[in-house]
Amino acid sequence: MGSDQKIFKAIYDKERRKIDTRLQNALKNRQPASLYEPGAYIINSKGKRLRPLLVLLSAKAVSGNFKQVYNAAVAVELLHNFTLVHDDIMDHADKRRGRLTLHKKYDPNTAILTGDSLLSVAYEYLLKDCNGNTKNVIESFTHGLVEVCEGQSMDTDFESKKNVTINNYLIMIKKKTAAMSEMCCNIGSSLGGGSKEEIKALSRFGLNLGIAFQIQDDLLDITADENVFGKSIGGDLVEGKKTYLFLKAFENARGEDKRLLKKVIDNKGISWKQVKKYKELYIKLGVLDQAGKAIRFYTNRSLSSLKILNDKNQKVFYWLADALIRRAR
Amino acid sequence: MGSDQKIFKAIYDKERRKIDTRLQNALKNRQPASLYEPGAYIINSKGKRLRPLLVLLSAKAVSGNFKQVYNAAVAVELLHNFTLVHDDIMDHADKRRGRLTLHKKYDPNTAILTGDSLLSVAYEYLLKDCNGNTKNVIESFTHGLVEVCEGQSMDTDFESKKNVTINNYLIMIKKKTAAMSEMCCNIGSSLGGGSKEEIKALSRFGLNLGIAFQIQDDLLDITADENVFGKSIGGDLVEGKKTYLFLKAFENARGEDKRLLKKVIDNKGISWKQVKKYKELYIKLGVLDQAGKAIRFYTNRSLSSLKILNDKNQKVFYWLADALIRRAR
Repeated sequence: MGSDQKIFKAIYDKERRKIDTRLQNALKNRQPASLYEPGAYIINSKGKRLRPLLVLLSAKAVSGNFKQVYNAAVAVELLHNFTLVHDDIMDHADKRRGRLTLHKKYDPNTAILTGDSLLSVAYEYLLKDCNGNTKNVIESFTHGLVEVCEGQSMDTDFESKKNVTINNYLIMIKKKTAAMSEMCCNIGSSLGGGSKEEIKALSRFGLNLGIAFQIQDDLLDITADENVFGKSIGGDLVEGKKTYLFLKAFENARGEDKRLLKKVIDNKGISWKQVKKYKELYIKLGVLDQAGKAIRFYTNRSLSSLKILNDKNQKVFYWLADALIRRAR
Repeated sequence: MGSDQKIFKAIYDKERRKIDTRLQNALKNRQPASLYEPGAYIINSKGKRLRPLLVLLSAKAVSGNFKQVYNAAVAVELLHNFTLVHDDIMDHADKRRGRLTLHKKYDPNTAILTGDSLLSVAYEYLLKDCNGNTKNVIESFTHGLVEVCEGQSMDTDFESKKNVTINNYLIMIKKKTAAMSEMCCNIGSSLGGGSKEEIKALSRFGLNLGIAFQIQDDLLDITADENVFGKSIGGDLVEGKKTYLFLKAFENARGEDKRLLKKVIDNKGISWKQVKKYKELYIKLGVLDQAGKAIRFYTNRSLSSLKILNDKNQKVFYWLADALIRRAR
């Protein structure tokens, strides 16, 4: 690791701890406990805090500073956790980051209301950092919220839809995943006092980075080292999810290969035993390489929009993009 | 009905239709249909649209006009419907305004996400009417959202709590019901260009009117004419809800009466057959009169805060308060 890389990593580690503390404080000493204790439970699970980091770095990149946007950073993480809590109910997920999901630890009613409440506190915190540019910032945040609801609904539609295309998929992940990182960079640079041009550039960076991040997520599900990944390989195939890999494979395949993939759609998934066979099919069809290429394509596109920033300010985003591509989980 | 009353009623009827149309348009032509069709379903059920009316009247009362706040009026009704959709899931309610609840018409997952989405569109619409005073308006709206989540959580706590007091109850309904009408008057008068004093006065009006409204709701559950009410009398007793009536009765009762009321708490409700007996107990203990007095107390308090408005502007609120007290459902 170069010396810049070490510095960036140290900044990330330090700021992540600060964000953790501020997140805890955001829900501390609030009543009723029946609402804010479950909120604290989900907030205390160790997340990567990438969205807050994007807010901080975007503020700094436009000559602002971290202090201007800590509350906004808390807000985007609260918003993110709101989506996790509600998505976990909808997905009937039992575990999240190695712990029981909120609706399993408590009950679905508590999880619905806690999600709503996290969102309410998110707006409350975002407002703390708004000065003058409130309307733009709240509009961007709200647009992110609208998009993430639409993306989640599209993702649900995909479960029963038999003819999902790569293009449908890209629209869906733009809404469900990338709109959120776009928003983080938008509000960070807005609150940091960026020019219209800078805000636009950083928003585009966030959007394309988010797309790369999601395709990387899909790729990791099949290529990760299980010991580091923290869960079994091939979960997306088992659930029959229409990931980038699956849709590319389906696009590429002919004959018997196509029939095998069609079975995943018709049966809404495969058994864990079959994962190895389908991984081999993915390799044969070249989709792991194609996914890797797509990740690099969107990463490069994200970084290229940063050219209007000075070299020093660009560096940290190169480090971040590199770290995300290299991540093992 | 006096001539002023007729005029006010005509304004209400006309504006309610306008709000209905604008609500429908807010969700029209949006994708994905899987998200916005269920949203349209709940929005199309005929509500009283009292919260939008409060927004409109509050803007007018401070020399603003309806046109300045139609989007805000749509926003508060969307927020209200967001709470209805999520509350109905939590309450396992089958019917709402004579139709299937959203999670029964569709499914719980759709209802969770549709609720979230209604809230996202609510912020989107509120922002359309914000000019200059965005921060205050969004703060007020967000505060209303925080309060309604807290109130709902307290209401749920009350189900298993055996020592709920009238004071606990008042705090709960302030959050769950009255914070919403307070917020409607606050944002209406803010967006209408009201002075700090006017905004404060109208907010206080909304808060106290909301308290009166909720106690009236509790009272109607036991005194309403079933044919007009649209549902059976005594539902709150059957569900064992700690209403104003029940808590007052419990406060007043001694001996055998107290024991009878204690049974409602311990058994978390009564059978439909027992409603008549408990209604008689309420009458004997004088709680229907006490509730009536409380409604008048909070109504008078709400109206008295309007003294800073000129007589003409006050009149419509007197009509509204009177109509709410006289309502049969």
